[in-house]
Order: sequence, then structure tokens, then C-alpha cells
Amino acid sequence: MPADAATRAGAILEIDLGAVVANWRLLAAKAAPAACAAVVKADGYGLGAIPVAQALLAAGCGRFFVATLDEGIVLRAALGPAPEIAVFNGPLPGSAAEFVAAELIPVLNEPGQIAAWTALAGPKPRPMLHVDTGLARLGLSQAQFADCLPCIAAIGARTLISHLACSETPVHPLNGRQRTRFLAVKQRLPHLEASLAASSGIFLGPEFHFDLVRPGAALYGVNPCPGRRNPMRPTVRLGAKIVQLRKIDRGESVGYGAAHIMDGPGLLATAAIGYADGWPRSLSHRGCGWLAGKRVKLLGRVSMDLATFDVTAAPPAELYPGNMIELIGEHYGVDDAAADAGTIGYDILTALGARYHRVYRDAPA
Amino acid sequence: MPADAATRAGAILEIDLGAVVANWRLLAAKAAPAACAAVVKADGYGLGAIPVAQALLAAGCGRFFVATLDEGIVLRAALGPAPEIAVFNGPLPGSAAEFVAAELIPVLNEPGQIAAWTALAGPKPRPMLHVDTGLARLGLSQAQFADCLPCIAAIGARTLISHLACSETPVHPLNGRQRTRFLAVKQRLPHLEASLAASSGIFLGPEFHFDLVRPGAALYGVNPCPGRRNPMRPTVRLGAKIVQLRKIDRGESVGYGAAHIMDGPGLLATAAIGYADGWPRSLSHRGCGWLAGKRVKLLGRVSMDLATFDVTAAPPAELYPGNMIELIGEHYGVDDAAADAGTIGYDILTALGARYHRVYRDAPA
Repeated sequence: MPADAATRAGAILEIDLGAVVANWRLLAAKAAPAACAAVVKADGYGLGAIPVAQALLAAGCGRFFVATLDEGIVLRAALGPAPEIAVFNGPLPGSAAEFVAAELIPVLNEPGQIAAWTALAGPKPRPMLHVDTGLARLGLSQAQFADCLPCIAAIGARTLISHLACSETPVHPLNGRQRTRFLAVKQRLPHLEASLAASSGIFLGPEFHFDLVRPGAALYGVNPCPGRRNPMRPTVRLGAKIVQLRKIDRGESVGYGAAHIMDGPGLLATAAIGYADGWPRSLSHRGCGWLAGKRVKLLGRVSMDLATFDVTAAPPAELYPGNMIELIGEHYGVDDAAADAGTIGYDILTALGARYHRVYRDAPA
Repeated sequence: MPADAATRAGAILEIDLGAVVANWRLLAAKAAPAACAAVVKADGYGLGAIPVAQALLAAGCGRFFVATLDEGIVLRAALGPAPEIAVFNGPLPGSAAEFVAAELIPVLNEPGQIAAWTALAGPKPRPMLHVDTGLARLGLSQAQFADCLPCIAAIGARTLISHLACSETPVHPLNGRQRTRFLAVKQRLPHLEASLAASSGIFLGPEFHFDLVRPGAALYGVNPCPGRRNPMRPTVRLGAKIVQLRKIDRGESVGYGAAHIMDGPGLLATAAIGYADGWPRSLSHRGCGWLAGKRVKLLGRVSMDLATFDVTAAPPAELYPGNMIELIGEHYGVDDAAADAGTIGYDILTALGARYHRVYRDAPA
């Protein structure tokens, strides 16, 4: 009998779609009466845009955001014609007609996108209009907004959006300044639906919710309130199989660059995961795994396909090739790995690798 | 007419298969009379294992290495029965029969893998045997080797391999120690083909070449001799399209966390690339791009789908949405990006993202 995918794979990623749905419901309840969309860009923050969006659609979410046109085309094909799908980056030059073909709502970010959309003949979705209020990334500047106001009326925009720069830091003064600027723009376009908050913005309070909120990271379990208790359920578990165990003597080195020297004799487990799987190389010397509830330190450098752990103190019954070292789970979450790697949970999730065997739990029937 | 993939995409990755082939030829000539394999694990270091291996096969390379069983199965299906494909991680528990089914050569790393391979009935490929000489990752330890020697004769191994820990540092004393240990093992198994060197090991001199060398990173243009002139040809170019240009005033902040404050008025270009594309978040505040041969600084934090550059001093004729900012190319190579990101070129390559439109140059007919 051929070995199944889980037997063949070196590492297994479990994705709890039930937790994603529970997170969406929690955020939707918190934001009500504002509507709650779901941001599934970057392949659903690494979890798989299609299974995530299908689960959320079945749970009642009817509005989705992606970053790019191609992401929108793929999602439309998977979800059918019913849900709204909006594309944050808007139409790049030459691509506006593709939005109509796939029934995608463009977010119009700058004067050229507004002009291209206006120039497009025939029936088309009502676009969203993005005004910048302080992130200085995409969206019309205050001056561009003033210049474009006459044309904006003609494009039949339905939704006005902006994006917060510092929503993870509730005390940051830019939050209030962005809200004030957003209100000023909204006053000029009073008939448009308004949307300002993403994950962390939802937790800044009802005055940031307006008509529509757009959570991404929090859906996937990243803590939207850093420094406080995470209100979200974790959505992923990651484990890598032990390929080999070895004894090692005091004074011997471990891994590339001989960068770790053993300060006593020990037992090492090398597991089938590396930075080519998105397990960050910046966890070298700092990361850890868990074996039967006990922490095992990552030793030396993470290599491309492998990482080595100190299992000297681990329960001997757990030490055999094929047994799994847990890398993301109840003991060590996405935000913990991010902190050790010097990055943010978003980055850990979107790097989740292509070689993992993926198991979806609580998928809709 | 529907927009083509290059028009729809936010970023474009050009992969020069001719350069990969030229690099393989250079390495093969340097290692001769040793044979020269090609390591195409981690999806050909991010460039695409199938197109890379097809190009190398057409150029005369008949031996390939991957890391995992699934990578081997996919490559066998693409390349047909002729070339040798060896799998570094060896058979994980329950998977040995799959190696026979796909005609994959297992690298046997530890006693359990040797036992599983020995227990497998019927005709099977001759395996490789991996002995550790100082990396302490995979491969039999000296003690395990002594214990296994009686069974090793029975498995009919064809090739003896080991792997260097510090080959990028020619003066490192571990190189010589590993070679000495390898020679001692080889003396016990004199009829086996011997292989010690990967990319950088090839440049340690002929005494490290033995019968077979196994370059990976150098095939793809990573400098195998850090600190010296790179003898390899670059293989990738990466560019991201400008989505939006905006003026910004002195004192305004750019991006998440308001982490960059403008010290004068300027002009910003936001491009369609982010850490979800594998463009490292650790390039925040440190990376750069190139526009018509002029360096443009990355400002603030890299975000998931976007990055913002200071184009104040760039040629005005180059400043329009859709124009490309070069991120990897003649001005700034894979190793340059790695240095700015605090990592190695291998990590930059294997992270190359799934959303890029990929263009293969010099593909075999």
C-alpha cells in the first residue's frame, strides 16, 4: 500500500478552520452594527485563501478582500458569483478590464487608477475609494483628494476606505489624527459606506468601526492587542518529524559555521523543517520546539531543510525517528515564534511553507 | 483582449536558466575529474526544481539531489526514468517503499533508515550512505558507523557522503578535520564512490572533490566564496511595479508604526511587493531598490504586500505607476539583499514568492 501524504511528509501543518470561523464571529460581534469582512490576501495569510474563504462564506461572511488581481481571480473562481471580493492594490496599468471580467471590486488608490476605471466602458462593479490619512502607502493624499473630487462623483464609489498605521498601539496619537482626517473626508462624501479598521483597529473602540471592518491577522489567531491577553483562538499547529537522533560530546559543534558548541554531552534530534519551509532562519540559536509538553531548545543555525534540537532532557519514550516536534501549538504560538525571530506573527503565517502536508480541521461539509 | 500574466502581476521574477547551466558547467569543470551533480531541493532553491532540472538534464547533468521524498516523486515524474535522483533526508518511517516505486536513491542517515531499507524485499536502487564528520545534523556518528559496519556491507551502498559545516570559511580548522574523518571512513569502504563537497567545498581545492561534488547554492548564483569575487553568474532578476507615487512633507511618517519620519519633503513610490512575497521584512529601514540605475532607499517597514521607496532623487521620466523598481539585478544581487537583511543568499532565494509572475529565459527547446 503506498504511503499516504502524512507518512511521506517531513512536517505537518494543521489548520483549524473552525477557529478561523470562531474568530470571525467574535470580531463581527465586537464590530456590530458595523459589517465585518474577511481579509484573505497572501493566500489567506498562509493558511490557504480558498479553504479559509469557503469556511467563512459558509458561516455567513459575504465580503472578502485580497491584495492583488490574480488573488481575486482565483478566489472568484473558487467562491462563485455570490460574495463581494475587493482588491486592495487596485488596477495596475492595463488590467482594469480584468476586474470587470471577474466581478472584482477595485480599491482605487491614486488618480491614475481613478482615470483608468472611469475610462472603462460598460457596466462595472462600484469601486472603493482609498484615501490616505497617515500611513503614506496607498490611497489619495489630501491634495490628490481635493484635485480628484470632481471625478470621484462620476465613478459611483460605494465605499470609502483608509488604513491605520499604529492601531496595535492604542495610545499612539496617530490613531486619533487618522480618524479625524477620515471624518473630514467622509463629510465630503456622506453617502459612501466608510471603513477604517482592520484587526487591531476593531479593538480601538466603536468610534473606529464606522460601517465596515476588515480583519485579517486576528482571523488567523495573531494577537490584535499586543501586550494584552490574546482574545483570538489559535488556528494553526505545526510539527516536524524527527529524522535522526544522535549523542554528542561536550566541546563538539552543531550545525553550519560550527556556531553552537556543546557545553556538556547531550542528545540531539534533527527534524525535517528548515528556512525553505518558512521556519525563520532568524530563529537560529533562539527558537525552540516542544516534545510531550517539554521545551526543547533549537541549537545552532536553522538550515534549509533541517533544524536541530537539544533533546537531552526530553522523555526517552518520545525520542524516535518519525515522532513530531511541535513548533507552533498550545505551548508556543505564532506570536511567540515571531518574538523569538524578531518579527511579527503576520510574517510567520505568510511564510508557512509549501512542503508541509496540510490538514484542514472543521472544514465545511 | 485579456491582460496577460505580466500585466496582471505586481512583481516579475526573471530566471535565467542559461546562467544556471553555465554555473553548472563552471563547477563541473572545476571539479573534474570528479562528477558533478546538481542539488535542486527546496524547489530548486526557489527557482523552480522542474525547469532548472530539465535545463541541466539537457546540458548533460545526470544526477540530482533533493531533500524530501515528495520532492523526489515530483522530480521523477517530470524528468522521466533516465537521471539519478537522490533524497538527502532518506526514508522517514513507513516511506521506504515509495523510494523504490519512484526509483529514488535514498541517502541512509541513521541506523533506523539502514534497517528499514535492508528489510525492504525485492529489487531496489543502491543507496547512499551518509556519515557525519562534524556537522552533527544527519549522518551516522562515528560510533553508529562502527556499530553498523556489519550491516552496511549488506545494503549494497554505492556512494559514501558527508557534508562540510564551514566550507565557506576556507581557513576554518573543521574543514581539514572533517576531511580527515571522511578519509578514515572511506578507508573502511574503499569500493564506494565518495562525495564530500557542496558549493563552497568545491572551492576548497581538489583534495575535497573526491568522486562526486554536489553544488546547490552556487548553481543559482550565490557566492560560494564570501569575501572574494563571485565566480558565479547571477540567475535571477526581480522587479516590482510602482502602484502609486505621492508627495510627502517634512515631518510626516511613512508606513506601519509611523516608524520612518521624513527629514525633508520628498516623493514616495509604493511598489507591489512585500514580505508575503518573501521580500524580507528584515529589510525594513535597510533595503533598497533601483530605478534606471539609481539607488532608491526603502523607507520604513516592509509590509505584507507593499514596500515604499524614496524616489525624490529618481529621474522623473521613470516615475509612473506600472514602471518597475528593480530589487534583485545587476546593481544589487541576491547576496547584497541577504547582507542587508541579516541573512544569507540561500534564504533570499528559497523565500522567492508564489505571487511573482515568473519568466524563464534560455529554457531548453
